[in-house]
Amino acid sequence: MSESLPVPDVARRISARLAARYAGMVGPETVQAVVDDSYRRLAATATITQFLPSLTARFAADRLAAIARAEGVASAATPSVLFVCVENSGRSQLAGAILRALAGDRVTVMTAGSEPGAGIASGVAEVLDEVGIPVLAEYPKPLTDDLVRGADHVITMGCGDACPVLPGRRYEDWAIADPVPGGIEGMRAARDAITARVEGLLAQLRTGSVA
Amino acid sequence: MSESLPVPDVARRISARLAARYAGMVGPETVQAVVDDSYRRLAATATITQFLPSLTARFAADRLAAIARAEGVASAATPSVLFVCVENSGRSQLAGAILRALAGDRVTVMTAGSEPGAGIASGVAEVLDEVGIPVLAEYPKPLTDDLVRGADHVITMGCGDACPVLPGRRYEDWAIADPVPGGIEGMRAARDAITARVEGLLAQLRTGSVA
Repeated sequence: MSESLPVPDVARRISARLAARYAGMVGPETVQAVVDDSYRRLAATATITQFLPSLTARFAADRLAAIARAEGVASAATPSVLFVCVENSGRSQLAGAILRALAGDRVTVMTAGSEPGAGIASGVAEVLDEVGIPVLAEYPKPLTDDLVRGADHVITMGCGDACPVLPGRRYEDWAIADPVPGGIEGMRAARDAITARVEGLLAQLRTGSVA
Repeated sequence: MSESLPVPDVARRISARLAARYAGMVGPETVQAVVDDSYRRLAATATITQFLPSLTARFAADRLAAIARAEGVASAATPSVLFVCVENSGRSQLAGAILRALAGDRVTVMTAGSEPGAGIASGVAEVLDEVGIPVLAEYPKPLTDDLVRGADHVITMGCGDACPVLPGRRYEDWAIADPVPGGIEGMRAARDAITARVEGLLAQLRTGSVA
């Protein structure tokens, strides 16, 4: 993490906007620090060159929402789930899209990668579209402590020891192999295996057995 | 609207998923009718060929959320705003993205077009990125009565008489010319003019003067 990487002027506009949105929940200094850190982390992956400011705004907004939840200043009426895999390009994106499609706004969904990849894996959008599930404008993003702190449930897939463990969080590891080497068939198999697990998770969330 | 256009099998999966999400709010027959109609309307534009099932799922979900709000069975704690322009590719997309960036989840934002275009207008993502605002995965979609009924505020830009007027809704027409002929400079000017108006709207929503 290079703290010396210069942050462009547009980051100040993003900070001002997010500070207004999170007024009374997260202080403006924290907002600016999260925005700057988000920019530097995304820039450091070096694979995202277009739309870096707007991706920074999205990533920072997700982190600030997680911080507000963790500090108890935002509504925690809906359970929050963080899916983590290695690149945040395949498995965690499948799981996030499937849970969003099943739960709508009844669950807060976050995704991250221990070593974020260059983009969404080939075939993810296609195999989800086959079952009528949108992926929206997702992008690989790094795993940060604030996302973990803001999650009631952390579900890991293949990232081993890279995921930080914090007291009080509920952790689960799903044994889903990296689907990328299996091509489109591997992606379909991962989609179906993850769907079954997400349905089980959602049923548990509904009965409150893991809430 | 061709009611005879066949709807693919994946629409049944989308309906089942959305019926579960809206259980107790919107009946399964209505869910299926909205999903089928959403598919047919998007297919009829003939410009969206890829990812039609997942776009159907998104469009139908937005309409069902609007129906649930209009019928008072979903939380109406946050005000909802519908932006309408002609193609849902330029002005209404700018306004929607800007309001989402400023308000976060404190406002429900919808957009539609009286004659949906083929895609998001060139330059929209670029001029928003210049100020650090994401557009997410937006797409032109038709104006439907259910979206209007589910909106507390309907803001039109250039669509003339094509926008249905319903009793009880608050309407406002913003005089913003089509930015597309002006190229990237026209898009920047529209962005700034719309930003000023959205900030005014948001200030009014906050004080409750138009809520």
